Amino acid sequence: MNYLITGAAGFVSWHLIDAIFKKDPKAQITGVDLVKPIDPAIGRPLQFIADDLSNVERLAKILETAQPRFIIHLASSSAVARSWQYPGETFKNNTAIFLNLLEAVRLANVGIRILAVGSSEQYGIVSADKIPLKEAEPPNPMSPYAVARVAQEYLSAVYTKGYKLDIVSTRSFNHFGPGQDSRFVLPGFAKQVAEIKLGLRSSRIDVGELDIVRDFTDVRDVVNAYLALLDRGIAGEIYNVCCGHGRTIKDCLRGLITLAGVECEITKRPDLIRPIDNPIIVGDNSKIKSQTGWAPTISFETTLGDIYKYWLSKVMPENTK
Amino acid sequence: MNYLITGAAGFVSWHLIDAIFKKDPKAQITGVDLVKPIDPAIGRPLQFIADDLSNVERLAKILETAQPRFIIHLASSSAVARSWQYPGETFKNNTAIFLNLLEAVRLANVGIRILAVGSSEQYGIVSADKIPLKEAEPPNPMSPYAVARVAQEYLSAVYTKGYKLDIVSTRSFNHFGPGQDSRFVLPGFAKQVAEIKLGLRSSRIDVGELDIVRDFTDVRDVVNAYLALLDRGIAGEIYNVCCGHGRTIKDCLRGLITLAGVECEITKRPDLIRPIDNPIIVGDNSKIKSQTGWAPTISFETTLGDIYKYWLSKVMPENTK
Repeated sequence: MNYLITGAAGFVSWHLIDAIFKKDPKAQITGVDLVKPIDPAIGRPLQFIADDLSNVERLAKILETAQPRFIIHLASSSAVARSWQYPGETFKNNTAIFLNLLEAVRLANVGIRILAVGSSEQYGIVSADKIPLKEAEPPNPMSPYAVARVAQEYLSAVYTKGYKLDIVSTRSFNHFGPGQDSRFVLPGFAKQVAEIKLGLRSSRIDVGELDIVRDFTDVRDVVNAYLALLDRGIAGEIYNVCCGHGRTIKDCLRGLITLAGVECEITKRPDLIRPIDNPIIVGDNSKIKSQTGWAPTISFETTLGDIYKYWLSKVMPENTK
Repeated sequence: MNYLITGAAGFVSWHLIDAIFKKDPKAQITGVDLVKPIDPAIGRPLQFIADDLSNVERLAKILETAQPRFIIHLASSSAVARSWQYPGETFKNNTAIFLNLLEAVRLANVGIRILAVGSSEQYGIVSADKIPLKEAEPPNPMSPYAVARVAQEYLSAVYTKGYKLDIVSTRSFNHFGPGQDSRFVLPGFAKQVAEIKLGLRSSRIDVGELDIVRDFTDVRDVVNAYLALLDRGIAGEIYNVCCGHGRTIKDCLRGLITLAGVECEITKRPDLIRPIDNPIIVGDNSKIKSQTGWAPTISFETTLGDIYKYWLSKVMPENTK
């Protein structure tokens, strides 16, 4: 089977490529990104094409080359905090590139299933009685990033209904695991804790808002959800991809500090606080469970341990490894 | 008072400029558009700046020059049919330019009220029991244009809540009147009927879907609604701007044919049918009425007559005028 992954150099893609080859060792995978993947995915027989998805004609050529049965659209400027600083870039690298992809697939007019990865940020600020969030909940986006994602989902609906494109959409909740960029909150903490452990920084940890609650799923579970949706998801439908349990950011930080066995001085940095933020985002995963049979399998503690080990190894000076 | 109008060369702007000067003869109006206004607005003391709103730095300079108290954001690729052909352009010339404007206003950090003109297309396909549509109804956009407009409205909410910008949003239903481009449905009919009347074309009228129901308001009432909202609208709120009465496109066409007293052969053209369309869009205008005192004043028949007269004069060969 032929797969095309956009955002192929990213953290989720590394794990997705592994999961595809585990499921289908003969898979033909084409990856598109700005730069070539440099981490775990390398060494795998991945056909890489450098492209920023800004041009429909170039995308048409990529489709011709890759001949995909499935497209997993991971490419995204996905940092919420950054979207407040660079909202224009966020729209370009979410909504505009997705629209280009839809146009290219529509014009190619062949049987391609697209997995349009969206975000739990689309739900925005909700009252406590809406938790856990079901897919029927209307959007209430609270950041430029979230608005761009809502637009992506509506575009999927328009192309499914107007042009009969085969699109399955996700609202993916927070995912975490080895390989994630330290601009995101948990790897950011893990990196700092690992540096403290190795005496590479003072005991000060810089944090943003700690009391918000998020629903974290291991990235290896997330990519298996994506493969389940490609196989058994219903076209035009939207699926929460989540664990169903909420944890405060503070609890996650405490977990990492306990793992490392270090003393830390926690310092709130105003520049890490967003203009507005959602106090709680926890999802209901009964739809994806019942329609695809998928369920998360990796415990929160296991993932936290894996992240800590990943960062410990990554920040360790070469000569001490 | 200083006003800045984006999309200043368009049909709505022509009428808005008239309405502003009627209300405030000393108004200082700056208009931005790709090309200079060439119709009714000319002759008015309008400061014109040619710009495509694609650049935040240039917009900052425009704000410095115009020093507006009010911005009326009319600039938009607003043809639904065209948005199916050129979805990327539609996003660029709706969502992206609006985002640039918000960023420029945020960075200027002065007291500016923005009227963010949106569209009834944001409601999409709704069941009959939702008619007339109230502002609380969740969006269900059914064209690339409608998705771009929904994104604009969500961005307004994000900037109002996150950055305390003073934004009032509209969902403007169909408006019509003299000066509207013949790519839109009623002026398109009026032009053809006028050409038939003058013997400039055969009796064939090309039409798309005739059974859809829309809520038409005279553009002169619409621009007065915009001024009422700038004065008395509540920041962060969304207002339907509409008449509250539904009419089929067929009835509008019949009205024009009766006015002209001509015989016509009505021909459905497949290329004028959209991939999907909303069967009925009729709004509830009680919110804007109760909060601002605005109400429509011009009858449907009066507007239809004015449009017919406008097109009769416009298509008449120079030597016969």
